[in-house]
Formats: sequence, structure tokens, C-alpha cells
Amino acid sequence: MAKNKKQKVRRPSAETPKGFRDYFGAEVAERSEMLSAITEVYHRYGFDALETSAVETVEALGKFLPDVDRPNAGVFAWQDEDEAWMALRYDLTAPLARVYAQNQQFLPTPYRRYAVGPVWRNEKPGPGRYRQFYQCDADTVGSASPAADAEICAMLCDALEAAGIERGDYLIRINNRKVLNGVMEVVGLLNPDAPDEGEEARGVVLRAIDKLDRLGPDGVRALLGEGRKDESGDYTKGAGLNADQTEIVMGFVEAERETGAATCGRLRELVEASPAGLEGVAELETIAALLDAQGYSGRAKIDPSVVRGLGYYTGPVYEAELTFEIIDEKGQKRQFGSVAGGGRYDDLVMRFTGQHVPGTGVSIGLDRLLAALREKRGKAAEQVGPVLVTVMDKDRLPDYQTMVAELRSAGIRAEMFLGGGNMAKQLKYADKRSSPVAIIEGGNEKDAGIVQLKDLALGARLAAEIETNEQWKAQPAQIEVPRERLVEEVRAMIARAG
Amino acid sequence: MAKNKKQKVRRPSAETPKGFRDYFGAEVAERSEMLSAITEVYHRYGFDALETSAVETVEALGKFLPDVDRPNAGVFAWQDEDEAWMALRYDLTAPLARVYAQNQQFLPTPYRRYAVGPVWRNEKPGPGRYRQFYQCDADTVGSASPAADAEICAMLCDALEAAGIERGDYLIRINNRKVLNGVMEVVGLLNPDAPDEGEEARGVVLRAIDKLDRLGPDGVRALLGEGRKDESGDYTKGAGLNADQTEIVMGFVEAERETGAATCGRLRELVEASPAGLEGVAELETIAALLDAQGYSGRAKIDPSVVRGLGYYTGPVYEAELTFEIIDEKGQKRQFGSVAGGGRYDDLVMRFTGQHVPGTGVSIGLDRLLAALREKRGKAAEQVGPVLVTVMDKDRLPDYQTMVAELRSAGIRAEMFLGGGNMAKQLKYADKRSSPVAIIEGGNEKDAGIVQLKDLALGARLAAEIETNEQWKAQPAQIEVPRERLVEEVRAMIARAG
Repeated sequence: MAKNKKQKVRRPSAETPKGFRDYFGAEVAERSEMLSAITEVYHRYGFDALETSAVETVEALGKFLPDVDRPNAGVFAWQDEDEAWMALRYDLTAPLARVYAQNQQFLPTPYRRYAVGPVWRNEKPGPGRYRQFYQCDADTVGSASPAADAEICAMLCDALEAAGIERGDYLIRINNRKVLNGVMEVVGLLNPDAPDEGEEARGVVLRAIDKLDRLGPDGVRALLGEGRKDESGDYTKGAGLNADQTEIVMGFVEAERETGAATCGRLRELVEASPAGLEGVAELETIAALLDAQGYSGRAKIDPSVVRGLGYYTGPVYEAELTFEIIDEKGQKRQFGSVAGGGRYDDLVMRFTGQHVPGTGVSIGLDRLLAALREKRGKAAEQVGPVLVTVMDKDRLPDYQTMVAELRSAGIRAEMFLGGGNMAKQLKYADKRSSPVAIIEGGNEKDAGIVQLKDLALGARLAAEIETNEQWKAQPAQIEVPRERLVEEVRAMIARAG
Repeated sequence: MAKNKKQKVRRPSAETPKGFRDYFGAEVAERSEMLSAITEVYHRYGFDALETSAVETVEALGKFLPDVDRPNAGVFAWQDEDEAWMALRYDLTAPLARVYAQNQQFLPTPYRRYAVGPVWRNEKPGPGRYRQFYQCDADTVGSASPAADAEICAMLCDALEAAGIERGDYLIRINNRKVLNGVMEVVGLLNPDAPDEGEEARGVVLRAIDKLDRLGPDGVRALLGEGRKDESGDYTKGAGLNADQTEIVMGFVEAERETGAATCGRLRELVEASPAGLEGVAELETIAALLDAQGYSGRAKIDPSVVRGLGYYTGPVYEAELTFEIIDEKGQKRQFGSVAGGGRYDDLVMRFTGQHVPGTGVSIGLDRLLAALREKRGKAAEQVGPVLVTVMDKDRLPDYQTMVAELRSAGIRAEMFLGGGNMAKQLKYADKRSSPVAIIEGGNEKDAGIVQLKDLALGARLAAEIETNEQWKAQPAQIEVPRERLVEEVRAMIARAG
């Protein structure tokens, strides 16, 4: 731009866009190991991989704002050269719907697919809230059978265990929207012959029971009745149910009993007057029986207090919670909470083809799951650094490079120092790299047919203070080995450190 | 949108945007296995993973068009709510530059990093040319040593072999921009004291030698001299070199000899009068010696006829070629050609910080490498389908699901049929899924404590013709086994088929 070199050059700022971040070394490896473990389970369950592109037409995403000629502000969107709007996918379900509608004749029915990858949200970023994050989904499209829901729940158990969550540290909780609909019928908020009526009142009830975790049963009771004043004095108007109606709704969210069969028995009592409600109970019974047959009953259970997603899904809903305790930001003990959720939807491809195609699926929140594993381990994953072959004599690079090649061929992560500087600088580099071992071969060593191995795991604390080669040789963590035994001795030193 | 239900609903079209595509099942697995194999080599060489976000500021990408207030048309870009331009990355090198400038104080020097992921190009799509594709890069930032270049070349050999390219089927060819600069000096097209002069003439020479593969030595000679008329009669003006000058340039591109040392000797003769050229030759000698010391000399060699990237890189350049022959679209035999390339650049972070930070790196074209492996194998990767447990009796789903759970626990990919339909439909589904085995347990089998195993690999040809359970039982590829031996017998049947 500036031909006149005296003119001050305006330099671009080296920053990620707001709400985006970079992942380095061990973080990348940690996530990719977790993803491999999870997708290996999905594959074993018969699910096939699907990788769609990051970019979709806004039309296919269904993210046009009503009455406005621009896409929803929640997506990152732009116009192609021919004026068509394109956008980055905001989840993995919308692309699945597009793929299924596009390829229905080639795909098996039911179609079990898993997908892993980043999604993008054009939302205000905050602490720990990024505008690009990973999702890991599995869905079964084209089966209305509750066996498909039960399968997803069992698979979720196996996936969490494969990712490193121990049995007993998690619980899959299962509910059913149809049972809630039955409750709505029984209390008079839903007329099966006119299902569009009373949507607003049902919305108030849904929002009330969605606050069970936060407000407890009494708070929800208040919101189901007249209303509730919170600590700040703000008043929330309630759903206006009478005492009998309130007890039926509360009976639903508190229906959990010792066994799945007993819970379903209690639900049956509540929705006896509603055919839709009884259908939902029968589905939960099938799911409970199938999970029981496979030995998952202790890990996945029917629990009508799960209300998340009840407004969105059309049949069974499920949620994976981690049950171990952590200390939160406020210093309080609490359960880690939800790391995955999903459920059944009946209208995946309706927008595209007009057909009712049932589907059910789960999405694992990878970042939360990784955070949970770090909590359990008490630390982030550690980088395994390379063995460092130091350069004592710049004219003998081929000698050093040969050592590196021998180590690498033996499967040992290794590198030759490629920067400039004396031994102290090379050791500081090794420290920054978390190298387990440094190798030194000066002229004397070369003549004697030996090499020095420095155990950096042992010597790490002192490394920063070492200035000269003499000090270095005085370290007890350093041993002399024959050159021809390099690989075996390095391997043994790493094993001792590990 | 349409409140009036009689009104015809305009449905969105279920299509990927132009130039984008989906990847299914085996394709995804094939690529991810190749990536694991390659990155495992990178990691062993001491390279650390880096994953940047897909989105960068246009400023950081450096993709603003000169004198225009819009980003380059080659990137997908949009404006943030605060008017800042963002874009999808078009390669993995620009994000590396941004990351290094941003985190220099935390990163080791030199910084070896690898990165894998999709990049996006806002270019006209064509057959086999997509607007989203994978790159797989490894770079060493902060080392000016030719040992860093040699290391990348050795690593490239190991990475190609790990990906499945056999030794002897590929060749890494190495050249050096500094030697070309020396040649330019010797023929009078470059004055080291005024390096900006004569850029246009040097450009003509570069473009001429870049056509060596296509036009052969005589065509290049013509373009170095007066000019050349092609078959269509079009005339391209030449660089106007005289015969002596032309022979020096041709001597450079034809300098390859039996050994690296001999090639370097020939280059030394050509650029003897140029200190910069001699520096380049010395670098190539170091690289050849280091590769030789590690046993790579047969796979990676100095070859000055490599001209790709010479205009872009500032020092050593390297290219990986697959040397086996394929039949191209025109039915002609030809070598598969280039699958990776790279070289040394001196100004990675200059734009951000004003510093000269040397770097060297390679980018593997994954899609071409996958295509090459399919050529060698003669086919695409095959999907390994799940064992199918059929549903004879809808009331006994827990029995079937238990079989599936046993198979999965034993590590065998398996699923229960979740669709609707008779046995013929279930077998057609198994066929579509490439299932190796189908399992049947009707009421009689249940009573007798046995299950039927159908070898679908054997029976595949006939499966489409089977209509009844009686025909099915007549198939020779079907055996009866005790229920309690289910897992062992399925495993044995898969082993026989495989």
C-alpha cells in the first residue's frame, strides 16, 4: 500500500475475532482422543459417519427471519456472487435434515448416522461461551420404534464410559412429552380435537416445571397457581391452576419411583383419562424393558422430573447428567450436571418434502464433557514432550540427526534442537517443550563412543539455574551410556519418569 | 408463513450450496484414518497440534483488495454487527502467522506445529474442485537452519508411507530459490544491490521454466529466447535471453546428477559468481547430507527441475510426487503427480510485527492423496456393515436387543432392525447396509434354544429374490447354532467371509 517507505505502516492486529479461540497441543489431542473413543462406540452400534460441509444455504437451514429478507441474526451468513444467502451451520441436525431429504432413496431406512464437528453461533460471546464449538451427534432417522430411543440411551452410556466417565458417575434420565401432553389433557389445558388452543397456558406450565431444579417443588407449585414473588420482589404471574390441577402436574414431575415399572405405574394413574398420555407411558415401559434386558437399568432410568427439551421434542426425551460433585465458581458444592441431551422429533424433513419422518437423537456437549473429565482428574491433559537431541557441535548435525532418526524409528517422539544458542538455552527450550530426556554428545563423548542422557523430569526444578556445561554434568539425573544403546537407554529413562 | 393451509407451501430445496459436498460412511472413516496416520508421524517428529477457528478477521488474513474497501473475492467474508469484516480461512498458513504473532512469548522457538482441517475458497467450482477441502500442514517457525527443511522432507516420506504409499511409489524433490536467484545474477537479470529492478524480466523467466513439464526443454528454451508459437498459432513473447544466457538457465533446470553431491557440484559451477547462489547450494548440500545420514537419500533428492513454488518461497522448496502410473481421463498413461509441496518463507509474521521470522513447512493435499490410494487399490474404501439381528416377533424386542448387546459388548458391530416390514424387507435392508451376517430367532428357534445365522456375504447374490421364510431357510449359507454360542459363531462366520 505505502510506496513511500518513510510512511508509518499500519499493521494488522494479530487476534482471533471476538468469541473465537485457538486450541494448542494437548488440548487438541485430548479432544480428538475423546472423539475417537465416542465415535468408535457409535460405529459399533451400527451408526455411519456423515460429514457435511460447514456451509449451507440459508434456505436449507431454515434460518430466514419471518417477514424479513435477511437471515436470522443467530447465524453467520453472507451472499454469494449470485445473491443467494449462505450461512455456517449452527448445529448438526439441520444439515442431517437436508441430507436425508436430498438422499432418501440412497440411504437405508432407518438411517443411523453420527456426525462430529464445529458449529457456529452468531451470538454475544461470554466467559467460556464461544461462537465456534464442537458437537457430537447420533440420530436414527425413519424409525418410530421406542427401541430406537432405548438404543440411543444405551449407546450414550457406553459413549460416556468410553470417554472416561466411570459407571456410577453419570445417569441417563428419560421422560416423554406425550405423558406431559396427557397431563395437560387431564387438567383441561389440552383438547385433543383442537390442539392449537390453549398453547399460551401450556407454555406457562412448561416454563414453570422447567424451573424445578432452580426453584424447588414449592416455587413450581406457586408458579402453577397464582404466581410467585422472587427474592428481589419481582412478581411472576402463574398459570392459574387450582389445587387439584396443580397436584396432578406436580404428581407428574414427582412420579419417579424405585423401578421403571413402578414409575410407569404411577404415570399410568395420572394420565388414565388420556389415550395420548397412555401411549407415552407404554413407550416408556418399552424403553425401560429394553434397557433392563441389556443391563442398563441402573444407569438409565425413567424420571419425569426431566423437563428440559419437553417443549421441543415430540416423544421420549433424555438427558445425561454427571452426578459427581464439583466446587463451583461461588465455592459451593454442586453436581456437575448435564453433558448431553436429546429426544424424538417427528418432523425432521417436513420442511423439505412434506413427509412425516420420525427421528430420535442425542447431542453430546464435548466442551462440557472435557471440562468434566479435567475436574475429575484435577488437571488438564499434559503435553508429552519430545526427547531433545542437543547440538553441541554445529558441524556434526548429521550425527545428531541420525540419533533423532533412530529414536523416531523406534516410535519415540524426538527432535534435534533447531534454534541457535548455548546449552543453557537449549535446556530452557527442552523445559518449555516438557521434554522427558535431553541427549548430549560433545567431541569427547563422540571419541569415547558414548552419549550423555539427562533425565529432565528429575532435573526439571534445577534446569533454570544451570548456566554452564560443567554444572550440567554435575547433575545426578545425568547418565553416560554407550552410543549404540541410545534407544534402549532413552526408553528406560522415559519409563522410569512416567 | 402460510396461515391459510390451502395456499401452496413453497418448500426449501434440499441441496448443498454450489461447490460443496457431503461425505458418507466409509469416505469419512477413510480420511480420518489417513489423518490419524499422518498426524501420528508429525507428533513423533516433535510437532504439536494447533487448531485455530475457521473464522479469522479479514485484516489478519491480509485479504483486503488493494484500494478497495471489500475483502478479496477469493474468500467467503461477511461483516460483523460492529461492521468488522470476518472471513473463513483459505489456508492453514495465514492462521499460523496470526497465532505466532499473537503468542510468540508463550511458544517455544523454534515452534513446530501441525494443523489439519478444512479451508474454504470462494472460487468457481468445477468437476472435482470444491469450495471446501482439507489441508494437512506441518511447519517449523523460527529456525533458519536447513536442518529444519531436511526434517520436513524426511517427515514427509514417513507421513506418505504411514498413509499407505509404498516406498518406491513416491519421490521428494528439492530445489532452492537462492540458487535460481544466483542464476539470475549470473545471466544479468538480478542486481543484488538493486533487487527490485528487473522483476518483470525475471517473472518471464520464472514462468518459462515453470512450463518445463508441459512444454519440455525445447519449449522452455524458446520462451527463454525470442518466444514461442503454440499449436493454435498463438505467439508468446520470450524473455529475450541470448544463447549463453539461455544455456545457463537450462543448465540450472537440468542440473540433476546421480547423487546429491554431484548435483550440488554442477550447481556450484553455474552460480560460482554469485554469493547468494553459493549460499543456496551450501543449503542444498546440508539438506542432502542430513537426509543421507538418516537413510532417506533414495526417497528425497536434490532436483533443480522442480520449479513450482520457486516464485513464492525464499529458500529451499520441496515437492512430493507419486511416481506410479495411472490412466488419465483421456485414456493415457501418466504419473500420478504431486500430492504435497512446501518450502521456506522468511516473512511469516512481518505483516503483524515487522520482524523477520524464518519458517519452513509443507502442505499435503489430502483429497489428491486419497484419490491416489484409491487408484492403487483399484477401488474406494468399503463400508463394514453391522451384523443385523432381525425381528421375527415384535413382542420379543428385549430378546433381540439382548443379542445385540452381547455382540456389541464383544466388539462386534451390530444392530437390531428398527424399521417395519417382513423378513424380505429386513434382508434388503441388511443388503443395503453391507451386513456380513443376519440373525433370526422365531418362536420355534426360541423354544429349541437355537438361532439361525445367515451368511450374507455368501448369500448376497440371491437375497433380492427371497420372498418367504421357507425360501430363506433353504439357503445353504444359513446355519443353526445354539443360542449361548451366538457371539463365537458370529465371529467365526465374519472371519470366514473376510
